This record gives sequence, structure tokens and C-alpha cells, in this order.
Amino acid sequence: MIPDATAAAPSGADDRPTTETPLVGIIMGSKSDLKIMTAAAEVLRQFGVLYEITLVSPHRTPHRMVEYAENARKRGLRVLIAGGGGAAHLPGMVAAFTTLPVIGVPINSTLSIQGLDSILSMIQMPAGTPVATVGLDNATNAAILAIQMLAIGNARLADALEKYRTTLKDRVMRTIEELRKGGFQDDV
Amino acid sequence: MIPDATAAAPSGADDRPTTETPLVGIIMGSKSDLKIMTAAAEVLRQFGVLYEITLVSPHRTPHRMVEYAENARKRGLRVLIAGGGGAAHLPGMVAAFTTLPVIGVPINSTLSIQGLDSILSMIQMPAGTPVATVGLDNATNAAILAIQMLAIGNARLADALEKYRTTLKDRVMRTIEELRKGGFQDDV
Amino acid sequence: MIPDATAAAPSGADDRPTTETPLVGIIMGSKSDLKIMTAAAEVLRQFGVLYEITLVSPHRTPHRMVEYAENARKRGLRVLIAGGGGAAHLPGMVAAFTTLPVIGVPINSTLSIQGLDSILSMIQMPAGTPVATVGLDNATNAAILAIQMLAIGNARLADALEKYRTTLKDRVMRTIEELRKGGFQDDV
Amino acid sequence: MIPDATAAAPSGADDRPTTETPLVGIIMGSKSDLKIMTAAAEVLRQFGVLYEITLVSPHRTPHRMVEYAENARKRGLRVLIAGGGGAAHLPGMVAAFTTLPVIGVPINSTLSIQGLDSILSMIQMPAGTPVATVGLDNATNAAILAIQMLAIGNARLADALEKYRTTLKDRVMRTIEELRKGGFQDDV
Amino acid sequence: MIPDATAAAPSGADDRPTTETPLVGIIMGSKSDLKIMTAAAEVLRQFGVLYEITLVSPHRTPHRMVEYAENARKRGLRVLIAGGGGAAHLPGMVAAFTTLPVIGVPINSTLSIQGLDSILSMIQMPAGTPVATVGLDNATNAAILAIQMLAIGNARLADALEKYRTTLKDRVMRTIEELRKGGFQDDV
Amino acid sequence: MIPDATAAAPSGADDRPTTETPLVGIIMGSKSDLKIMTAAAEVLRQFGVLYEITLVSPHRTPHRMVEYAENARKRGLRVLIAGGGGAAHLPGMVAAFTTLPVIGVPINSTLSIQGLDSILSMIQMPAGTPVATVGLDNATNAAILAIQMLAIGNARLADALEKYRTTLKDRVMRTIEELRKGGFQDDV
Amino acid sequence: MIPDATAAAPSGADDRPTTETPLVGIIMGSKSDLKIMTAAAEVLRQFGVLYEITLVSPHRTPHRMVEYAENARKRGLRVLIAGGGGAAHLPGMVAAFTTLPVIGVPINSTLSIQGLDSILSMIQMPAGTPVATVGLDNATNAAILAIQMLAIGNARLADALEKYRTTLKDRVMRTIEELRKGGFQDDV
Amino acid sequence: MIPDATAAAPSGADDRPTTETPLVGIIMGSKSDLKIMTAAAEVLRQFGVLYEITLVSPHRTPHRMVEYAENARKRGLRVLIAGGGGAAHLPGMVAAFTTLPVIGVPINSTLSIQGLDSILSMIQMPAGTPVATVGLDNATNAAILAIQMLAIGNARLADALEKYRTTLKDRVMRTIEELRKGGFQDDV
Repeated sequence: MIPDATAAAPSGADDRPTTETPLVGIIMGSKSDLKIMTAAAEVLRQFGVLYEITLVSPHRTPHRMVEYAENARKRGLRVLIAGGGGAAHLPGMVAAFTTLPVIGVPINSTLSIQGLDSILSMIQMPAGTPVATVGLDNATNAAILAIQMLAIGNARLADALEKYRTTLKDRVMRTIEELRKGGFQDDV
Repeated sequence: MIPDATAAAPSGADDRPTTETPLVGIIMGSKSDLKIMTAAAEVLRQFGVLYEITLVSPHRTPHRMVEYAENARKRGLRVLIAGGGGAAHLPGMVAAFTTLPVIGVPINSTLSIQGLDSILSMIQMPAGTPVATVGLDNATNAAILAIQMLAIGNARLADALEKYRTTLKDRVMRTIEELRKGGFQDDV
Repeated sequence: MIPDATAAAPSGADDRPTTETPLVGIIMGSKSDLKIMTAAAEVLRQFGVLYEITLVSPHRTPHRMVEYAENARKRGLRVLIAGGGGAAHLPGMVAAFTTLPVIGVPINSTLSIQGLDSILSMIQMPAGTPVATVGLDNATNAAILAIQMLAIGNARLADALEKYRTTLKDRVMRTIEELRKGGFQDDV
Repeated sequence: MIPDATAAAPSGADDRPTTETPLVGIIMGSKSDLKIMTAAAEVLRQFGVLYEITLVSPHRTPHRMVEYAENARKRGLRVLIAGGGGAAHLPGMVAAFTTLPVIGVPINSTLSIQGLDSILSMIQMPAGTPVATVGLDNATNAAILAIQMLAIGNARLADALEKYRTTLKDRVMRTIEELRKGGFQDDV
Repeated sequence: MIPDATAAAPSGADDRPTTETPLVGIIMGSKSDLKIMTAAAEVLRQFGVLYEITLVSPHRTPHRMVEYAENARKRGLRVLIAGGGGAAHLPGMVAAFTTLPVIGVPINSTLSIQGLDSILSMIQMPAGTPVATVGLDNATNAAILAIQMLAIGNARLADALEKYRTTLKDRVMRTIEELRKGGFQDDV
Repeated sequence: MIPDATAAAPSGADDRPTTETPLVGIIMGSKSDLKIMTAAAEVLRQFGVLYEITLVSPHRTPHRMVEYAENARKRGLRVLIAGGGGAAHLPGMVAAFTTLPVIGVPINSTLSIQGLDSILSMIQMPAGTPVATVGLDNATNAAILAIQMLAIGNARLADALEKYRTTLKDRVMRTIEELRKGGFQDDV
Repeated sequence: MIPDATAAAPSGADDRPTTETPLVGIIMGSKSDLKIMTAAAEVLRQFGVLYEITLVSPHRTPHRMVEYAENARKRGLRVLIAGGGGAAHLPGMVAAFTTLPVIGVPINSTLSIQGLDSILSMIQMPAGTPVATVGLDNATNAAILAIQMLAIGNARLADALEKYRTTLKDRVMRTIEELRKGGFQDDV
Repeated sequence: MIPDATAAAPSGADDRPTTETPLVGIIMGSKSDLKIMTAAAEVLRQFGVLYEITLVSPHRTPHRMVEYAENARKRGLRVLIAGGGGAAHLPGMVAAFTTLPVIGVPINSTLSIQGLDSILSMIQMPAGTPVATVGLDNATNAAILAIQMLAIGNARLADALEKYRTTLKDRVMRTIEELRKGGFQDDV
């Protein structure tokens, strides 16, 4: 049941995955959540982590939700990312039907009250069934968090995370350089 | 002033069982919610409406929740009342597994952020799966609402509701009288 | 006073109603609320449930409100749906003048503070006078809830609700299929 | 320091009843609001302004509310003060049935969510029907505001308000003196 | 100091004022508040109530604010209306320098956090110095409230308020008629 | 029912130290946070997961925080749990100095505004540096989440989680039984 | 007008001040604020910074407030610390009458709505008149901030601040040591 | 280490600075914050106060942040202004690594929940490490506050602040005049 790091695991940020089993399941209740949640898919793809992405509506396809959650571990998934807006029950209910870690992405949908309902509906879970909630609309952070979890037992992913951090830092430093060249600080 | 349980008991909208089958199911996720939710039971008892009350935890007994919701209609239940605090998923998820009307009682538990999380987790349901949400900790109103629903097809319950209103009014008028006798308004 | 299920009741989702008495009254305080509240009318029409829709302003036509609420039951109405924004007093005050179930639709009007004022003005009713509050701007859910109440004593409506749920589910499943065909998941 | 009730009592804006008719009506929905609302009565008594204080529940005695509001002006009342907690409809609905100025006192009752529901239920009235809302639980300010309104046409009340302000100021100055004597500032 | 109702007072909704002294002062801190606050002026003009409207910034022209407030009563003003956004100190500080009634209009300016800061900065005044706060951006209600205050001692204004209410009601009834003619309710 | 610490202790995802090295670091800024955070330690102990628990104040010992975060991975830690109240910077800043997954526990300290400041300070992280935030004061869920992460590569922990879920369920079922025996449902 | 660093400045954490002019004025509107605001005085005393502490009520002693603010600079004060609860106008209005830096301490008084009204009333000042707002009830931080401002031109205070930081750090480290000795971490 | 007022200090509002060392450091985590934060730079330029402005990301360039904060005092900076949105850790963490006064500008970024997260993440600092927080997006006030701090030991800046205030006042008075000329008040 432990992922064979050599075979199944992503081999780095620039390599494409070599096997077929997705490790991360990205789910959401509605097609309208896709514009937010695809960011998670994009990040996972960049890290070479196999994922699947699909709709699982807790209120319109509740049995599908139960099945998805109950079969997730045996299908080889290691982490679930679930997004939702308003009374966002998907991550919490999925977490009730699996013991895999579930990451929640609160979405500021048109239904939502500034996203506060989505955040509170996800984060305030009772003891025993956590949802690892990230920031509003922040599917990128959900993906990074999923990779951090996978990297616990995968040195190459751990390395990729370090490189990613360096990239983020370098981008800031380059922006600083550009601003300087653009005469941004010439008043000083 | 309490409706005669024998007389007032609803006879069922389409002549279903008259004495043994509960019409209202009161459920909650945790024993600690009982101190709030028993108020609903008390009101139903006073109106002579058969009910059942039990624990159904969406996160600790999720299969029980699915079964409870799916069997509710065929077991003869007509209305469900579900209470919860924090990320309160019970009413919304039950509503996903049944088409009976579901009344939600947001509870200001120790887990909760002034009850705002409970309210928003219940009320902000997506289109198609409503939860009839009442006020914070207001299990009494959940019971009255359940009776109002049952009274749609039950003249005796409709009468009992009118009498209940008169009782509420009379109680206010009596308090006014007592205050007056107690010299409360002698400054005027 | 009990609706004759055979005569007055809606005969299914695709049949048109056969009698003239509306069962659901949809009211709101202002013409500007219409763009939200017509969704409720549309759903009721699809379920073949007779309704009426009109303006009843609690602050500008308060006597009309009293009369509307007091006559609702004897006029044959079974459920009231009341929408409002800001200090939304309509559902709660109507509920004080009738014992019919009253469903409140909080509206995020231009007057409103993210709709939070509308929600709290409706939901936080004192014991004895519930308002069955649904989500912000969610008139669709108000209609579904009204139908669920009517379906307590109407088997055809109960069937129609089950079919509606199946429709919702099918629509999700079709979207999943379309996304799959569109190559949406080809990265996996 | 207390205004002489005999001397300072308002003489009425257009020479209406001089001693017997209350000018201010203090109303609230529930006996439990009394502990807050009596502060308004006390202030009015100190200013020698005749008042009446009673229960008027918008949801349990709605007809009494309509009658109270509609008769208020002809009974000689000039200003109404209405308190309430939670979905606090009393001031706004009274304002719909009278054109007298209505002052609202939002109450942080046990029902209330930090009083925010009470405040928003009162203040966010639609155009045409204002409620002059004061601070949470601040019945004292409601009374002062009522006196300010009455003082528009009553020179003695206007004088009494100036004296009241001087009293408030003097009390602060005396506290400063006491703190100084108590060695409070000896570090300086 | 008491307004001579015959000479100074507005003579009704359709007559123009006959004397020169404004009774209501409308003030605000910034020119950008004008688009909200002119609604108050418009209402007062329609009621034939003399007013003045000007800028008084509590933070940029604090001495002007002190002078304005201190001289308001002796200049003949009877009511002050003060608008502001963000940390809205104008109404409360003006209320500290005069005993005239002060009406606060919280403004949802670009500075403001959904107007909640403006509302709380106005309404939560300490005991002794009330601000009669109306709804967010609701300068119309501020004007109506000012007229209600003036109407305490002015029968013609009291009449005008009744007529205004009738107008509001008639407008609702006309809208209902138009909707009916437009076939709005033909589904019923 | 408690996992055997000897047997169940995680063996490490890639065969790192088996007994001596803690896998989870529990940190918090202040001694007063201990009464909340020890719950996480207790849960980890029950699951036989080695942990360390200590104070790391982001504002009073910032260099210690940098060092702790930077050395965490190489010291063998796999997951960090960081608690804090008010402007809770610890989890987010630790996450900036390590690529290990960081779980945040918002604490409703005396400093805090209903815990909302703690929640928002943790959850709203910028893209690239997630904090896996759990519910207010819910250190138990932080520990369960940490174990879920570790269980990705540890079959025995995955089993222990399943058993833990069964335990939670059994406890609910036992409570139901006790309530039934106690005559709780005898009204039905 | 520039403070003579040699004469007026505090000479260190343990020395008592040598001259008589206070540099920091601590003011608040009400005696009940004293229990919070004395913490600021205590910190200043420990740093040997001369201060004065007194009541200045913006609404009950508004002229005193104007005078205090206008004379503050010429009396030798360099920084003002102003505390208040509810509609907390003191810091902002003082800032309008002086160009000295004004530090605001929002107080969670009984009047206040979780302190949120106090915070927003202080922080949301219009451009041109800042209030340096610190955390709720955090008079300690107001004092430290005042000292940081004074330390801009005072090397000894700058040194004292560094020592203070070291003290804070040492206290954390000592607590860690005590916890360790107390067997706190023996599970690891 | 004390600024030589003659050499380094700004010489007034209209003179340009004569030396090279910036006194104020303006920092922010992201280029997107620049559109808000440049307002601070503009104000400082107008007052002739030397500043520097650059990016320092607490989460993407954490070591740069530590270095920037630790070297700030010795590099001659006297005040730091730090802006950020969402979980805005920059001002608080910089304040942990320096004893210079740190001014926080909460930014209502796209990430942010109405800016409330940014405000609370900055203002609610623990005792010992204050952040002088100004209003949402109010970089102008951050600059004015910085100048007020510098003016404690710089008479010319103190004068410039007085002139600035006069300018603000004059602008209001001119607007009043323009409105009057534009016939704005001709109704009175």
C-alpha cells in the first residue's frame, strides 16, 4: 500500500510521469468551480505528479461522493483536494468516508458571502475528521500542500519543492532588478 | 393550554399510521447538542406529534447518516430536524439523501465562532437542496416549523397552531398585567 | 381546509395545474426584488404547483401585509415565500400574522451589507414564530422547499421531487462526460 | 443635579396636555428586555418627561403592535423608543404604522449574535421608513435622543440638556481630580 | 429659541418656505460624500423644509466643526444631519458640541469596509451623546427622520408625512397594477 | 483500542530512524497556548508517533524560529504543527523557511477576536507557501492530519487511522444505546 | 522645539527620569479604560520615559480634548497614546488637532462589539490624519511603539529597546528550560 | 547612530533632500502592491524625506526579509513602512527583527477578504512587538505617520506638517467656496 517511490512517484519538476495511477484526486461540486481548481492541476502537472480531476457533487451526486471517497485509497490515490463555495460540504464529507488527507479549497463563488461561508464550512470540522484548509480560491496552495505531503516519502519531490522555492525567490529578485533598471528608485 | 395529545395528534396526510410511527425525526451529531435539541422534542410532544430523537454524526457515522436519510421517507417520517455546530454538515447532507423537508438548527457549540459558522454552513446550500434554517440554538422554532409543515394537510394541527399563538399572546398580556399591578408604570 | 390531493394538487412535473387556487404565495417588498424572486415562480411552474406572485411591502403597505398574511390560509394558500433585502422584516412579520409555514429568501440588494443583514433579519426570529430561511438570493431553494412541504401530503409531488433529483444528478454526470470527451482529463 | 421634574417638564410643542399624557412610549417585545430598557425610563424621569413603558411583541402580539403604533400620535405620544434583540422587527414595523419618530435600541439578548443581528435588523430600513438607531444596549442614549427631539420645541428641555452635559463634564473633571489626589499621576 | 411654527416652519409639501432661516443643517466631511448626501437635501426641499448643506471635515477642518456645532442652535438650526465613511467621526463629534439631535448617515465610501466601519463608528456612541444612525448610504431616511423630529411641533409637517406615506403606498399599489396588466401573474 | 505504540510506530517513509527521532514537531509561540496544543501531543502519543513539543515565538525568538524551520527537515521531522492566536504568524513564517508540510492551529487566545484573526492570519497565505489550517483550537485535528500525512507512506498508520475511525463510530453507537436504555426515546 | 536629548531623554531602563516634562501623554475617555491603559504607563515607567496619564473624554469634555491636543506639542509632549472603546473617536479627533504622532489603543469595553467597532473607528482614518493603531486592549504595545518613536533620536532608548527584546527572548528560553525540566517533553 | 538633524534631515516641504541616506524604508511583498504603496513614496518626496522602496517578500524571500530588518537601523533607516494583503506577515515579522518603528499598511488585494484579513494580521500583534497599523490601502497615512515620527526630533518637519494641515484645510475651504459659487446652496 506504500507507494513505490521509484515506480509510481513523480520523478521531478521537468520529467513527465512514467506510470498511470494518479496520486492526487482533485474534485469539486460544480463545473463553475473549474476556473479556480484547474490551477491545482497545473501545479501538479508541473511537478510531474499524476492527478485526476473530476466533478463530485456532495448534494447532487451524493452516492458518487461516498463511492469516490471510499474507493480513493484502494484506487491508489494518496491525497484528495476538494473545492467548493457557500455551504461547502464536499471536503468535510469526503474526509468522513476516507482516512486519506483531504485538502479543502474554499471558493468565493457567486453563491458565497465573501467566501467566509466557504472557509468556515470547511475549516470548522469536529475533532477526528480534519480538513486541511488553504486560502480562499487558492488552488495553487492546495497543490503545493499535496506535493509537500507526498514529498514526506519522496526525496525527488522534496528536491523539486526546494527548487520551486528558489524559483519563487528568483522571480522576486528579478522583479526588484527590473524595477531598479526602470528607474523606480531614482528618488532615493 | 397544551394540545391534547390524543386528540390533536396529526392523522397523517394520506392516512398513514395513526399512533405508532414517528412523523418527525430529530437528529444531531453529538450528545452535547442534546441540551439544545430536546427543546424541539418537548414542543412536538406538547402538540401530540410523534417524533424520534437520536444521534446521527455526519463525520463519525457517515454510513448511518446515509441510511437514516435514505430510509426516512419509507419509514414514515415526514420532516427531519437536524442540529449541529461549527462546520455543520448534517442537515445539508441529509437533505442530499432524501427529498423530505429538512430543518436545520445551527448550534452555538463550544467549537463554534459565535454560531456564524453553523448558520452559514447550513443556510448557504446550492440550488436544488434546500435546508430550512432557523435561528441559532432555536430548536423550538424548528419544531414549530415542522408542525406548520405537517399542518398543511392536518386541520387539527392547524387549529393547535392557532391555539399556541393565542397562548403566546396571552402570556405577553398577562405579563403586562403583572407589571402594571407591580407598580411598574406608576411613574407615568 | 385540507387540500384535496386529487383535485387541487399539482399532478406532476409536466402536467399543467387543473384548478384555480394557488397553493404558494410568493411575495416581496419591492419591484427590484423581482429579478431574484421570479426564479421561485419558475420552479413552481415546472412542478405544476399553482402560485401567485405579488408585491407586499412591510413598510410601505403594512396593512396590505397584515391582510395578506391573515387571509392567506383561508384563501387556500398552503405555503408563503417572502423575499427581502437589508432589514428584511417581511417574512418574519408575515409569520406573525399567519400560522402557515413562511420561507424567507434573503436578498443581497444594493441596500444590503453583503446580504448578512438580510440573513440575520430573517433567521434570528424569537421562539414561536419561525422563518424557514434559505440561502442568499436562493429563490430556487425556496420553491423546492415549498414543494417538499406540499409533498408531505401529495405523492405525485414527492415523485416529482425524486425525478428532479435524478435530473440534477444526470446533469452533473453529463457534464463529467463532456469534460472527459473534451480531453479535460488527458493529463492523468 | 437632577432636573426639577416640576419645573423642567416639557410643556408640549403646541400646548397639548401638560401633566397627564405621556410624551414618550417605551416598548419592547419581551420581559427580558426590561433590564436594558428601564434605563431609558430612568433618564426620562430625571428630565421630568412623562413616559409610558410596556410590552408590545411584534411576533406574539402583532395586532397590539399595529394598534399601538397607529394610535400613538392621537394618544399624544411624540416619540417612540423600541428595543429588541435578534431579528429585531419592532422598531421598524412600528415605524411603518406611524409617522412619529421611532428610536431603536438594539439589544444583545441571549438570542443575539453579538448584537450584530439586532443592529442590522434595525438600522438597514428601506427609504421612507427610518429607525433612529442608537448603540447596542444603549437605552440611555435612546432617552437622551428622545429628549433632544422634544427639546426642538421646548426651551426648558433644551436648557435641561445643556445642564445634563455640564453634569457629565463635571463628573469627568471630578474623577480626574480624585485620581490626582489618589496619587495616580505621581510618577510624572 | 422655540421655532415660531407660523413664521419659520415649513408650510407643507407643496408650498415653498416663507422665511430665510434653515432648520436642518446637512454636513459631510468630503466632496465625494455629496453624491449620497444630496438625497437628503432633495427630500427636505420636497417637504418645504429649509436646510443648508456644506462641508465640515472633522479631521481637516476641526475648528470649523467645533464652531459649526456650537453655533448651530443659536443660528436657528433644529436638527443636524451628518454623513461620513470609514472612521466616521463627524456625527459623534458634532453631537459632543451641541445638544441638537444629530442624525448620522454611514457612507460606504471607497475607504470603507463594506460600510461596517462607518456604521459602527457612528452608532456605538457612549451614554449621553447619541447619534441617531440610519442605514448605509440612506440619506433619504435621514431627511425623513429630521422631518419627523420637526413634525413633533408642526402639524403641517405631520400632515405632509402622512401624505408622503400615502404616496409611497400608492406607488407600490400602482406597480402591482402594472405588473398585473403586464401579464405578470397570468400563470396563476 | 489505542494503537500499540511499540508496534504501530511509523517506520519512516524511506527507512529513516525508527525509534529516536521525532517525526512531528509541535510548536507554539507562548506557554499559554500549551493548554490547547497538548491535545495534539496526546493524539500523536496514542498513535505511537514520535513528536517533540516546544516554544518557538515568531516575534520574541525570531532567530530560533528561522533555525527551527530551516533545520526541521534535516533533523528528521516530517510534519510541523504550529499554533498561535491573534496575528498568528508562526505557521506561515515557518512555512516560508521549510518545505515540510506545516499545519496551523488557530487559537482563540485572550488576545484574539473570537479567533477570526487567528484563522485569517493563517489561512490566507499567498500562493507558493500553504499552511494547512484546521479549526479553531482544534489541535486534535492537527494531529490527525499529521498522521494522515505520515500514513501516505506507512501502512500501519493507515490501519491505525481506520481503527481510530471505528472507535469514533463505536463511541457514537454506544452513546445512542445508553440514551435508549436511559429511556431517552420513550416518548416515541 | 526639538527635545534636548541630554536633558529630557530617559536614561535607561533602571534609572529614573531626571527632568520634569512628560514626553508621552496617555489619555482615555473613561475611568473604566484605566485598567487597560495603566499597562502603557507601567511600560513607560520601566523605560524611564516621563509620561502623564489623564482622562480626556471626546464626547463629555470635548473642549478639554481640543485644548489638550492643541497644547500637547508646546507643552513638550512628543507622542500621544489614546485609548477608547465602541465608537472610539478620541485618537482620531486628537490627531485632527495636533501633528504629533497619535497611537490608538482600541479597547474591548462592555460597550464594544468584540472590539471590532473600536478597531475600525480608529484605524480607518481619512488620508492626512493617521492614527497608529495597535492591537485590541494592547496598551503595552502602544507604549513600546511610543518608545520606538522616541528612540529615533535617542540612542539610549534605542539600546533599552534592544535590551527589552533580549529580555523577552530570554523569558521564552527560560520557559522552554522549565518545561524541559518539568519532564514536559519526556514522551519524545 | 542618531540622525544628525542638520545634515541628514529633510529640510522642508519644498527643498530637496541634501544627503544620500534614506530615512524611511518602504517595503512590500509583491509587485502588485506597488499601485497602493507608491502613494507613500509620493508623500515622502513632497516632504523632502529620503526614502527607499523595494520588494521584500516574507514568504518568498524570507532571508532577505530577515537581513533587511536586521540591517535597517545600522543602514540609517529610522522608520519602516510595510504593506501587504491577506495573511499579511511582513510588518509583524520585520518588527520582530528590528526595534525601529514599523508602520503597517493593510492592502485589500485580490487575495484579501475585504481587507479584514490584512488588518487583523497586522494589528493583533502580541505584546512587545507593535505594528503601527493604518487604514486599509492608506499608504498616504503611513507616510504622514512616518513623518510625524521623524518630526519628533526635527523642527523643520514639524513645521512642514503644520503647513500640510493648513493645505488640507484650505482645500476643503476652497471646495466649499466653489460649491457656493456653483449655486450649490441656492435652495436655502
